[in-house]
Amino acid sequence: MKVTISRKAHFNAAHRLYRKDWSDEKNAAVFGKCSNPNFHGHNYDLIVSVTGEIDKETGYVIDIKILKDLIKSEVEDAFDHKNLNVEVEEFKDLNPTAENIVVVIYNKLKRQLDSNLELEVQLFETERNFVSYSGK
Amino acid sequence: MKVTISRKAHFNAAHRLYRKDWSDEKNAAVFGKCSNPNFHGHNYDLIVSVTGEIDKETGYVIDIKILKDLIKSEVEDAFDHKNLNVEVEEFKDLNPTAENIVVVIYNKLKRQLDSNLELEVQLFETERNFVSYSGK
Amino acid sequence: MKVTISRKAHFNAAHRLYRKDWSDEKNAAVFGKCSNPNFHGHNYDLIVSVTGEIDKETGYVIDIKILKDLIKSEVEDAFDHKNLNVEVEEFKDLNPTAENIVVVIYNKLKRQLDSNLELEVQLFETERNFVSYSGK
Amino acid sequence: MKVTISRKAHFNAAHRLYRKDWSDEKNAAVFGKCSNPNFHGHNYDLIVSVTGEIDKETGYVIDIKILKDLIKSEVEDAFDHKNLNVEVEEFKDLNPTAENIVVVIYNKLKRQLDSNLELEVQLFETERNFVSYSGK
Amino acid sequence: MKVTISRKAHFNAAHRLYRKDWSDEKNAAVFGKCSNPNFHGHNYDLIVSVTGEIDKETGYVIDIKILKDLIKSEVEDAFDHKNLNVEVEEFKDLNPTAENIVVVIYNKLKRQLDSNLELEVQLFETERNFVSYSGK
Amino acid sequence: MKVTISRKAHFNAAHRLYRKDWSDEKNAAVFGKCSNPNFHGHNYDLIVSVTGEIDKETGYVIDIKILKDLIKSEVEDAFDHKNLNVEVEEFKDLNPTAENIVVVIYNKLKRQLDSNLELEVQLFETERNFVSYSGK
Repeated sequence: MKVTISRKAHFNAAHRLYRKDWSDEKNAAVFGKCSNPNFHGHNYDLIVSVTGEIDKETGYVIDIKILKDLIKSEVEDAFDHKNLNVEVEEFKDLNPTAENIVVVIYNKLKRQLDSNLELEVQLFETERNFVSYSGK
Repeated sequence: MKVTISRKAHFNAAHRLYRKDWSDEKNAAVFGKCSNPNFHGHNYDLIVSVTGEIDKETGYVIDIKILKDLIKSEVEDAFDHKNLNVEVEEFKDLNPTAENIVVVIYNKLKRQLDSNLELEVQLFETERNFVSYSGK
Repeated sequence: MKVTISRKAHFNAAHRLYRKDWSDEKNAAVFGKCSNPNFHGHNYDLIVSVTGEIDKETGYVIDIKILKDLIKSEVEDAFDHKNLNVEVEEFKDLNPTAENIVVVIYNKLKRQLDSNLELEVQLFETERNFVSYSGK
Repeated sequence: MKVTISRKAHFNAAHRLYRKDWSDEKNAAVFGKCSNPNFHGHNYDLIVSVTGEIDKETGYVIDIKILKDLIKSEVEDAFDHKNLNVEVEEFKDLNPTAENIVVVIYNKLKRQLDSNLELEVQLFETERNFVSYSGK
Repeated sequence: MKVTISRKAHFNAAHRLYRKDWSDEKNAAVFGKCSNPNFHGHNYDLIVSVTGEIDKETGYVIDIKILKDLIKSEVEDAFDHKNLNVEVEEFKDLNPTAENIVVVIYNKLKRQLDSNLELEVQLFETERNFVSYSGK
Repeated sequence: MKVTISRKAHFNAAHRLYRKDWSDEKNAAVFGKCSNPNFHGHNYDLIVSVTGEIDKETGYVIDIKILKDLIKSEVEDAFDHKNLNVEVEEFKDLNPTAENIVVVIYNKLKRQLDSNLELEVQLFETERNFVSYSGK
């Protein structure tokens, strides 16, 4: 009897779509205004979903406070009010597309969770553009 | 060719996280302010999703009015403006965590639906905390 | 490593639930006020989700601009500010229930996408009534 | 000590922007695709706000149930699943722009309310286009 | 040159509509299911809006962090996960209707703010029922 | 008989709170993480509201398409995917707080509108922090 519990969080960050190993012209041609060298930014919304058996004792899959604190330490403290390209280690050599960001967040959270728990992460770059990843 | 049709509903209720067989101290230690003896409450939002073949005659998986009425009789009439711990039979001996509530709602609805139809229930305790269950 | 990328879009349209081969009485009996001969309408919201491998070069599953343009040409230009029953070819002989509309949209988009990409379409007739289809 | 109490409601309707006394060409030139002769439609959302003194006895400005019932009888029953141009008396000779609809709704509600109460009506044609009127 | 700055917050609480000086029958007759003796509850959303001149030095009307902390100490810490009737001093002899709650919150915040600043408080009992008060 | 018509728009931008004439230490002390030298960013949502008489001919206060195009040319083209501090003339010597941004947008739009029309601009920096200005 597996239930999924989800927690919504958010962070504000600057980024640009950019590959160091490409010329500025190629970056501009492929990524358009998203490659603006002066950066632009987003309010990223995040939904973290954890699936597992309900603990008979507590009635919890996972204590939502533990999940909330985990998202804070792994994602919000690391990304909020940051420039993803310049200040976040994982994107030093990885283009911070929504797809790549969601995989990075998934990997950071997955290694902190009990291995019995399944994880899915959904990341909203805007209300209209969003991605999800569940490790498959 | 299976399509999923979803209906959103809601109810307002009071609850506390609490196990009768635990001391007040243990309830407070495990459930924190969610275990306040005087109760607190939520606007619970509910998304009920039914998956099945489209009926060739009507173009419906299920008449949404039937689904709406079913949610009203099984969930809204039973839970709305109620104290879940005190007044709802299913939680007399079951801690009303979001996880346990969503399973109770799933079971109430499932036995009223044609067995060809798959069911998933999503329950929002707040905009930021929510759970889902599909009987797996 | 498969990621899902989603794009939200919308269109405003008139429709009525109606089968030509049924009498007006039968249409009214089965579809109620949704069968009003003078039509009613909706702001349809649409979420189109594409699942595939992340392209190593670009960090994209699909360039969201390509997906946005595809939704515009296949769905928005075809359905927005239209009467679905009267003006949209696909519904000349198909009752425009939410279920049938979402399958039509899925089929229009699927044949324009690379066959390696999986597709899911979610259609909101109202905030409270919505459907989804993924070709299964 | 005046408090404002608001109630959200909604209705689905078809309409077209159109003046009988103009040629089809002029209607098309001025109103564009909003003048499609086969109609299009919207999920109209409505916020009705009533301002007045708090009743010392009840703690209410107005019983929200009374306001809800008034919106149902004056607006929802009259407009929901209707074609505004064809079926709603007030728009027989009045172009159903959002601006004109909100004034009609305001006038219908205002004459049912105690004259001590101020009224404001906000009408959302879409999430991005909306109007308000307070009788000034 | 006056600008309004708003901050959204929320708290979860239990309440019942009830006057001690009325019989249970009268409470039930006037307040219906909202007077359930076992309480029900809500996710209350709150928008606090402060209007004043922009400070030339900082470009702020008020530092949003100060406003956020004020809402936390005066409203969230006082009301969140509480039973308003039983545990909140202000409602010991005051019926906790949305109207009365919004006036209480306004008064608590107003006395902490610089007298040059105007205040408006909007309180959502549900997404569909809400009130506002600005001290007029 | 004055009606208000509103249009919602949005843009994504990078910024930092910063005064050139202050030391880095003072900027950091006053503006905290919002002053990060590498910038952060937001999805800014914008509601532009225009109040005036309904035109008897058209039933419009202002053609929403004209308002939409005006917002595009004055705000979206100027600010979207930009770094406000570095690339937007108005903020070369003006700290881009939400308060200052909303006044800049108001002034840009006001001078393009017929002087009979009143204007209010609401700017959401996040879902929880927002400002409004109406030229008073």
